[in-house]
Amino acid sequence: MPGFRVALLGTQFMGRVHSHAFRTVASFFPVDPPEMAVLCGQDAQRTAAQAAKFGWEEASTDWREVIARKDIDLVDVCTPGDSHAEIAIAALKAGKHVICEKPLANTVAQAKQMAAAAKKAGTVTLTAYNYRRAPAVAHAKRMIERGDLGRIYHFRARYLQDWILDPNFPLVWRLRKEVAGSGPHGDLNAHITDMARYLVGEIAEVCGMTKTFIRKRPLPAGEGELGRRGSKKGAAMGEVTVEDASLFLARFENGALGSFEATRFAAGRKNHHTWEINGEKGTLCWDLERLNELQWYSTEDAPTERGFRTILCTEAGHPYAGAWWPAGHMLGYEHTFTHEILDVVTAIAKGTKAQPDFEDGLRTQQVLEAAMRSAETKKWISVPR
Amino acid sequence: MPGFRVALLGTQFMGRVHSHAFRTVASFFPVDPPEMAVLCGQDAQRTAAQAAKFGWEEASTDWREVIARKDIDLVDVCTPGDSHAEIAIAALKAGKHVICEKPLANTVAQAKQMAAAAKKAGTVTLTAYNYRRAPAVAHAKRMIERGDLGRIYHFRARYLQDWILDPNFPLVWRLRKEVAGSGPHGDLNAHITDMARYLVGEIAEVCGMTKTFIRKRPLPAGEGELGRRGSKKGAAMGEVTVEDASLFLARFENGALGSFEATRFAAGRKNHHTWEINGEKGTLCWDLERLNELQWYSTEDAPTERGFRTILCTEAGHPYAGAWWPAGHMLGYEHTFTHEILDVVTAIAKGTKAQPDFEDGLRTQQVLEAAMRSAETKKWISVPR
Amino acid sequence: MPGFRVALLGTQFMGRVHSHAFRTVASFFPVDPPEMAVLCGQDAQRTAAQAAKFGWEEASTDWREVIARKDIDLVDVCTPGDSHAEIAIAALKAGKHVICEKPLANTVAQAKQMAAAAKKAGTVTLTAYNYRRAPAVAHAKRMIERGDLGRIYHFRARYLQDWILDPNFPLVWRLRKEVAGSGPHGDLNAHITDMARYLVGEIAEVCGMTKTFIRKRPLPAGEGELGRRGSKKGAAMGEVTVEDASLFLARFENGALGSFEATRFAAGRKNHHTWEINGEKGTLCWDLERLNELQWYSTEDAPTERGFRTILCTEAGHPYAGAWWPAGHMLGYEHTFTHEILDVVTAIAKGTKAQPDFEDGLRTQQVLEAAMRSAETKKWISVPR
Amino acid sequence: MPGFRVALLGTQFMGRVHSHAFRTVASFFPVDPPEMAVLCGQDAQRTAAQAAKFGWEEASTDWREVIARKDIDLVDVCTPGDSHAEIAIAALKAGKHVICEKPLANTVAQAKQMAAAAKKAGTVTLTAYNYRRAPAVAHAKRMIERGDLGRIYHFRARYLQDWILDPNFPLVWRLRKEVAGSGPHGDLNAHITDMARYLVGEIAEVCGMTKTFIRKRPLPAGEGELGRRGSKKGAAMGEVTVEDASLFLARFENGALGSFEATRFAAGRKNHHTWEINGEKGTLCWDLERLNELQWYSTEDAPTERGFRTILCTEAGHPYAGAWWPAGHMLGYEHTFTHEILDVVTAIAKGTKAQPDFEDGLRTQQVLEAAMRSAETKKWISVPR
Repeated sequence: MPGFRVALLGTQFMGRVHSHAFRTVASFFPVDPPEMAVLCGQDAQRTAAQAAKFGWEEASTDWREVIARKDIDLVDVCTPGDSHAEIAIAALKAGKHVICEKPLANTVAQAKQMAAAAKKAGTVTLTAYNYRRAPAVAHAKRMIERGDLGRIYHFRARYLQDWILDPNFPLVWRLRKEVAGSGPHGDLNAHITDMARYLVGEIAEVCGMTKTFIRKRPLPAGEGELGRRGSKKGAAMGEVTVEDASLFLARFENGALGSFEATRFAAGRKNHHTWEINGEKGTLCWDLERLNELQWYSTEDAPTERGFRTILCTEAGHPYAGAWWPAGHMLGYEHTFTHEILDVVTAIAKGTKAQPDFEDGLRTQQVLEAAMRSAETKKWISVPR
Repeated sequence: MPGFRVALLGTQFMGRVHSHAFRTVASFFPVDPPEMAVLCGQDAQRTAAQAAKFGWEEASTDWREVIARKDIDLVDVCTPGDSHAEIAIAALKAGKHVICEKPLANTVAQAKQMAAAAKKAGTVTLTAYNYRRAPAVAHAKRMIERGDLGRIYHFRARYLQDWILDPNFPLVWRLRKEVAGSGPHGDLNAHITDMARYLVGEIAEVCGMTKTFIRKRPLPAGEGELGRRGSKKGAAMGEVTVEDASLFLARFENGALGSFEATRFAAGRKNHHTWEINGEKGTLCWDLERLNELQWYSTEDAPTERGFRTILCTEAGHPYAGAWWPAGHMLGYEHTFTHEILDVVTAIAKGTKAQPDFEDGLRTQQVLEAAMRSAETKKWISVPR
Repeated sequence: MPGFRVALLGTQFMGRVHSHAFRTVASFFPVDPPEMAVLCGQDAQRTAAQAAKFGWEEASTDWREVIARKDIDLVDVCTPGDSHAEIAIAALKAGKHVICEKPLANTVAQAKQMAAAAKKAGTVTLTAYNYRRAPAVAHAKRMIERGDLGRIYHFRARYLQDWILDPNFPLVWRLRKEVAGSGPHGDLNAHITDMARYLVGEIAEVCGMTKTFIRKRPLPAGEGELGRRGSKKGAAMGEVTVEDASLFLARFENGALGSFEATRFAAGRKNHHTWEINGEKGTLCWDLERLNELQWYSTEDAPTERGFRTILCTEAGHPYAGAWWPAGHMLGYEHTFTHEILDVVTAIAKGTKAQPDFEDGLRTQQVLEAAMRSAETKKWISVPR
Repeated sequence: MPGFRVALLGTQFMGRVHSHAFRTVASFFPVDPPEMAVLCGQDAQRTAAQAAKFGWEEASTDWREVIARKDIDLVDVCTPGDSHAEIAIAALKAGKHVICEKPLANTVAQAKQMAAAAKKAGTVTLTAYNYRRAPAVAHAKRMIERGDLGRIYHFRARYLQDWILDPNFPLVWRLRKEVAGSGPHGDLNAHITDMARYLVGEIAEVCGMTKTFIRKRPLPAGEGELGRRGSKKGAAMGEVTVEDASLFLARFENGALGSFEATRFAAGRKNHHTWEINGEKGTLCWDLERLNELQWYSTEDAPTERGFRTILCTEAGHPYAGAWWPAGHMLGYEHTFTHEILDVVTAIAKGTKAQPDFEDGLRTQQVLEAAMRSAETKKWISVPR
């Protein structure tokens, strides 16, 4: 696909990691290098600097203009969640292929509009749940598909962090519902819900609970005008309007039971995204903090030699791994994004779909919204189909 | 306490491990050896043989007679759960100190009667949740009590096993509600609920779900007359009447969130009893399969040197450990029972209470019953106080 | 073997753990309980107290008298190494079966006399290298014998401790060559050398080095008269005459390469006895601090599903394990001794040999002495056969 | 340093990873992007293709011409070891800064010439021992330098692989002494020797042993004319002329003891580069297969809360880590090279030295050569200074 041109919207964390992925994919995989046409951000200076650092041809601060350009084939949306729908739908209407960071949208209503627009456009879409592309996760998927686990009984996952454990950590935008949509539920439960659906299947019903442990926090510097309440020390405080933790139980359509937990209050857990799947023939486990390792227990091993194996998924036979280094050479976080770009570019070249597409991302959103509603109503909620 | 005499009822798994504990406690701890007066079982021959193996003076098949004996100070009830109430209450009425295996009873109603009888008798009682006495768990309790974790946010525990994973595993008594009361809920969730209450505090409300994955199983040899349904292979099948898995969410009275899971369908998990507690100042984790190790993360360590520590709880300064071997010499499963007997004998000698007593055991039962009712009604249920 | 009677010499650490093993073996294994006839120690009061605690019929302070008794079948020598030869040879001459704690003797010369006396007596002897009887180790032996590793290339082991890391730790007897024979070489390298010979085969030649990091230490309380050298603070210091660390390389007769290390200066390592064996078909690893776990990697697993398995050696099919508790219930340090007593008692009953017998213990001694001589001469030394 | 231009020689494994590092460094670190001027390889087509993949401006097959170019500031030598000296010395004579892959040379004689040429040129040189730049290793260095370990007693390291375990693995160039210089000794022991010198200090004397387990192997396809010996199956076999395993003991100048082992015959060990350092105040451990984790045990922790900590070296305060992602997001193998390029570029810009420079690389070479000579002579060998 020579001449295939990309525009990326967003210059923060996700903007950087996607930029690196576009820049790197053709160094290691047999695809034509995507042409990095334009990086789009809000701050002109920052955007220009970052464009230079990662090799984007141009920098822009006008996403509408960028999307309207004829020379752009793929639009990658790495902006905050409340802008996903507007941007992605506009890009789809302009006939672009679209990657959208997760979660697909802050509401199911928006996600539905996005999925509908994607269907109408007929282009390739991707909801960027990057962890599907860790070699160990992709290999687990292969194992499950070929029946290594047999019937699945349990999925249990947790995504634990601790970055707001300090009560003096400021009231950043991620702690305000109007911007972020939710707390760890949309941020972290989104990932493990996508994993659950990818590896086990669709979820039928959920029952959840949430909690905000610290209800007031200092406003970030320069935001004193919001919420000042005359505290003695002059500390301007504001209200946390998202949950600090969110747990839910689930029943899958295939009869498996699920347990999900996301929190930002687990001291020492930095990026503790783990899951375990128990099937009739064995168990698989994964932990993002040791992302190249897949744990497997097989009931088909000899009875006195059974045990959990640590499979180091860096062999040539493991998904994606062979393109990098010899066995035993570790891949890191950003490789999952490079693989994501590889798969999107390949899907576009072959005229196939990428997964998870917008329709798929919508379903994850529906599970999350059902869980949130369950927490509010203290009832089990069916996930709509 | 020279001349302190014990009767033990039960010759199965728990009967053996309690026997060993009585026999061993005075070899390592500074207490007078309890006199092992009588072992009581249903099968005369088996009981006599086991009494000989463990050094009981006498064997008996008549528990009423044993309890009536004047020379018995302590009765240890290791029989199946449906007989706990009758035996324990009789022993209490006879003025005995009483140890009762967990769960305290199959129903809250029975547990209440037992707790009332204990209160009336005024003797020492113990619900035998042995894992409180693993040195690592007892040390965690000390750390929490002195404030090492600060305010607690999360408790998450699971107790996973796999011994009935094979659908051809027979329909043993533990899979029949009329005898066992419940499946892994009363067997395994009981342990982690006791841990939760011991380490974190009382539970206010719960919401659970259960599932029976395999509904029919072969009857054990010699039970063909029950439930034969003329299957082709002539296999006599019976109905599983307990759950195979049980999960619940919980809110503690102190505001912490809890997550509990018990199953017998987790391939490779033999005795996977683990918990993690997240507090404002750190995290503690424990795993029964590595029972001497306590994981600790402290936010008070220097920022660039923080990490989960594996504390090997075999030092002289750790609870119980100093009585055994030098540091680094591992203790095993049965040591937790020896410590239990030590504490009961010591409480009796000092005229204090042992913990968890029957009242304490009742509360665990109330949590379990609330969770089971929640699973049946699909509603959050408050735990009565 | 009803009426089989035992005398145990020694009341310290090893005396306690052997006592417990004699007391426990018949509770769990199908053997007649050994009659615990007499415990023999230097201090009459301590010996009597300990005899009472563990259930020995009598206490004595005269080992010669004990050995001369007609009613004693088995003598268990748990005294310091410099007395092993005299006692064990006397017991053998008296026609007794003899267990002797490791190392068999402080010198090869003594060990040879002991092996010769054993041969002449024709009774059962055992050099008490207890770790051979950890179920995971015994299972590893089975796997190697049936060819699971194929040709063996490497054995690497280390036994690390840290109990004298503090320079103010006193000059206890274990730090004086005249009593202890050597430092960690005879104490710890002895264990891993026995493991090497048990699991891999005989050692042909060795090359070692040793070092004493702290050359002077405070004398223990009450020993001021030895070695006082008028230090300013009045601290009476004495000379450490054993090594603090000992390492050696080895070539096995079968062509494998070996690496051995023992130290008391490895901060945080309490009882870190680990080994790894690499063969043409796989690798086995073991760690005493997680003694129920055996690590296994097999090249016969499917290429993309290979990995180190953690085999929890608590299944009924694992050596010794089935006699204790259900799968997943951990055994501890002292179980290895109970298994040792089981095997000795069984060998005596069946008229077979126990392993490692005195001849076998002598060979380990020869390896150790060769390594020590190598360290002194800075040359490779052949192990005599 | 705008306009700073680089030439890279070599298109294999190291050529790829260095290319990626040059391409990536300025995306994440505040340096001007090095201008990737020319990639030089033996095969014109392969070199051109790879230059395109990684963004080199030109491709060349003539290294002499490349080195002679005025517009090149830095020459990066990623060719096989037997060509290092000629190329690097030529580049130094041409006044270039030079990076050279490890080991610096196949012989000490060559390495000396290189170090002398470097001294004369006065430009920046680097021997590319990349693992010094893993954040966890660099952080360990900081901890040691500020005294967290105190006096060091032990360094033990091993670097285990298994890629030639299969006797039918062909006789590739790495198994021929005339090309490769040595087997795992120069390949793997080189890395852990560099680590030892970096973290602990200079080595005074060594004693080693080596072994070739499989002496004949099938010739690679197309090499039948070498060494055919008319085997029955028509398999053309050739002689392995390097060692398969190499171990050595060492004494450091500061009195610490060292243990080193490298092998290609450790089944299941893919890239098992681990080391442990024991000091008077604590222990540090690292494992390349979990490269972001640093294990630390501190004797300054409270006695009952001591334990090995797993420090996840992904915090902003850890070396290099802050430039990448938030805490808990894993770095991989190639990041160590990006950090290496960063440090070289920074040293050049600042006019300082990079480490390890050629002089430093020479010393590692001297240790390796002494160990190899020791293995041949079966004597302890002093490392020259």
